[in-house]
Amino acid sequence: MRLHGMRFFNFVFPPRPKSAAIAKERLKIVLAHERAGNHAPDFLPRLQKELIDVVGRYVDIRDDMIRVSLGKSGETSLLEINIEIEAAKAKAKLGSAVPA
Amino acid sequence: MRLHGMRFFNFVFPPRPKSAAIAKERLKIVLAHERAGNHAPDFLPRLQKELIDVVGRYVDIRDDMIRVSLGKSGETSLLEINIEIEAAKAKAKLGSAVPA
Repeated sequence: MRLHGMRFFNFVFPPRPKSAAIAKERLKIVLAHERAGNHAPDFLPRLQKELIDVVGRYVDIRDDMIRVSLGKSGETSLLEINIEIEAAKAKAKLGSAVPA
Repeated sequence: MRLHGMRFFNFVFPPRPKSAAIAKERLKIVLAHERAGNHAPDFLPRLQKELIDVVGRYVDIRDDMIRVSLGKSGETSLLEINIEIEAAKAKAKLGSAVPA
């Protein structure tokens, strides 16, 4: 098990006020790419749309509920996608989704 | 900017011995899903294969270079995919990849 327990869970989803937590779901995608050198191509920005498309097969995503950040530090590129989804829609869609 | 600087980069990719770093690239995908309740369906395991397929369009992935961890803590599910890719192959493939 490579996950780091509660510390990591709190790290990905910082605690939020209780009032905002009702019937909301959150999804976070983090993509990190450590390249062999600074000159290696960075494909994360191109990957971004495709990943959102895939996730969209499982849950309903409204454009105004997505936040995307792209960062870089040395040889590492980091893409972070935050999506707020509505629980009810998510459930309905999941019931019928049968990925090939 | 929602990323947290060097601390976060070190967190996603723990430092490794210099000798192992030569001409290797690493890709990490972290998916975190905070559900509205414990009874909400968990679709991360089903999403896993599709995400790897998408990434496979950008880089060559050998099955023995993938490590997948799935964790759960309360209402949050966490999927972590670690992929080692070979720099040369990655570049070759990137040159011809034109996502629609």
